Amino acid sequence: MTAAAATAIAAAGASLPAVALAQAAAPAQAPGFYRYKVGDMTVTAIQDGFFRRPLEGFIRNAELPAVQAAMASAFLSTSAVEISFTTMVVQNGSQITVLDTGNGDSGAPTSGLWMRNFRAAGYTPEQVTRVIFSHFHGDHINGLRLKDGTLTFPNAEILVPAPEWAFWMDEARMGAAPEAMRGAFAAVRRVFAPIASNVKQFQPGAEVAPGITSTAAFGHTPGHCVFMISSGTGKLMFMADTTNHPALFVRNPDWSAVFDMDADVARATRRRMLDMVAAEKTQVHFYHAPFPATGFIAKAGNGFELIPVQWTSSV
Amino acid sequence: MTAAAATAIAAAGASLPAVALAQAAAPAQAPGFYRYKVGDMTVTAIQDGFFRRPLEGFIRNAELPAVQAAMASAFLSTSAVEISFTTMVVQNGSQITVLDTGNGDSGAPTSGLWMRNFRAAGYTPEQVTRVIFSHFHGDHINGLRLKDGTLTFPNAEILVPAPEWAFWMDEARMGAAPEAMRGAFAAVRRVFAPIASNVKQFQPGAEVAPGITSTAAFGHTPGHCVFMISSGTGKLMFMADTTNHPALFVRNPDWSAVFDMDADVARATRRRMLDMVAAEKTQVHFYHAPFPATGFIAKAGNGFELIPVQWTSSV
Repeated sequence: MTAAAATAIAAAGASLPAVALAQAAAPAQAPGFYRYKVGDMTVTAIQDGFFRRPLEGFIRNAELPAVQAAMASAFLSTSAVEISFTTMVVQNGSQITVLDTGNGDSGAPTSGLWMRNFRAAGYTPEQVTRVIFSHFHGDHINGLRLKDGTLTFPNAEILVPAPEWAFWMDEARMGAAPEAMRGAFAAVRRVFAPIASNVKQFQPGAEVAPGITSTAAFGHTPGHCVFMISSGTGKLMFMADTTNHPALFVRNPDWSAVFDMDADVARATRRRMLDMVAAEKTQVHFYHAPFPATGFIAKAGNGFELIPVQWTSSV
Repeated sequence: MTAAAATAIAAAGASLPAVALAQAAAPAQAPGFYRYKVGDMTVTAIQDGFFRRPLEGFIRNAELPAVQAAMASAFLSTSAVEISFTTMVVQNGSQITVLDTGNGDSGAPTSGLWMRNFRAAGYTPEQVTRVIFSHFHGDHINGLRLKDGTLTFPNAEILVPAPEWAFWMDEARMGAAPEAMRGAFAAVRRVFAPIASNVKQFQPGAEVAPGITSTAAFGHTPGHCVFMISSGTGKLMFMADTTNHPALFVRNPDWSAVFDMDADVARATRRRMLDMVAAEKTQVHFYHAPFPATGFIAKAGNGFELIPVQWTSSV
């Protein structure tokens, strides 16, 4: 555009009635990132939007009225639950680590905001040195590769839990999987098969990067892992899908979401992990907690409560 | 800058080591605005930062250990409280209303972020058609006028509670005020005196703009008002300083912050208002609640609890 054209447009704008100016404003939500420190590391929660699903049929072992009562007590809808997706970027000096990648362009229309929010946070995909996955459900892995095949992070090392890889990449298991599971197996292959030889598997318990240590938290999936992020006295536990929406499953840790592949193991893991972070007052991040998806766990009745951190403007 | 210079700089940037690129990123917090709908109106919470003060001496009628216990149960500091400032913009068609204006350039160094966040939300000060004040404490009014005298909103009508105006603009009362109150009187004059003849006073109870109705909520200051924002079935109560930090005063509504000018009246008002919004399940906004400063009130023990709304990416 020439300077003269720009001036002409600006002048036209200045002469628009106040109505037009006002209605041009107030478009989108604020960028969905939230930044805080863990010791010397800088953590940025990056939002990927949400998926809205009916409440009915969501929980295997609770009656709908009980589930609706839990939602109502959190002032949430009693017909549908909005499951949000919040991944994490950990910046440690020159190392930029992404934990789980969101839905990419493969999720619900209300998701797929990750890249916009990641760029709004000041990062570019080329800067990412490492991507670590908690498990292989589509809402965690699809962001690694667009539908057209493009890899999102061209310079990143890819790290995955060995038992998760063993489960999903097993040809015989895929062949024997029920129809309802075929899509999940196919998603894993779509994302990882072309780079299989470059993916690094880690054993749960291993330190996967300086200050980022994995812990087995099986049940949600066969190789589901969580990660302790430590720097000096700073600690943060990336709890991944140890619970789905906290208003339901932190409050009622014995409830089982349909996404838990082994409900009994997942329930035992959830209790154990929540007990631990409550006792140690460890700051936590849940992938499906309301953005910015971080807070602390307190005991409450027979369950727990997630107490969000106070939002701060100062990083 | 010439195109050639820009290209040269871009090329230099591309050849920087990854370390430099990474360390250039991750600077600031996300813009502090949060947008949601109240019926057909678009509401935007605008953050102005925070003020950190010692916990000791903050509450008139509670022992420090009790106050520290309340903070600890919210996983907050037991030595200082971060009091944040969140104003509100209500867009109703072509009408853009600002409720309270933040600290401007007169507050703590950790405040004064309002204009940056307001512009990040897509607005300009010239678009504002109306500014409504809840009361005349500096952290609510100083944003109307910079220290150099500039008015922030050149096209806005200014609306204030009549009893608040009567109290603070009374010359005899200012003359008789104790030394500790002189600054507050001076701040009111600094902001309002040059435009006194253009300020519109309203009586508490009046509809001050289409869909925005005032209610007397005296005690925090002599003319402190709150505002019900209504559009269709949508309702939101702008509670201003009916409580200060909710972890302290929503949980313990009988506690009195040192900022409450008439502690007994403020306490009665707080109980009455919290009872009302809890019974009617009205969404509320508190000026000093953690950003985005909106949620619902539930009864809890002898007090109440603020349950924040679930952050959503879709407005």
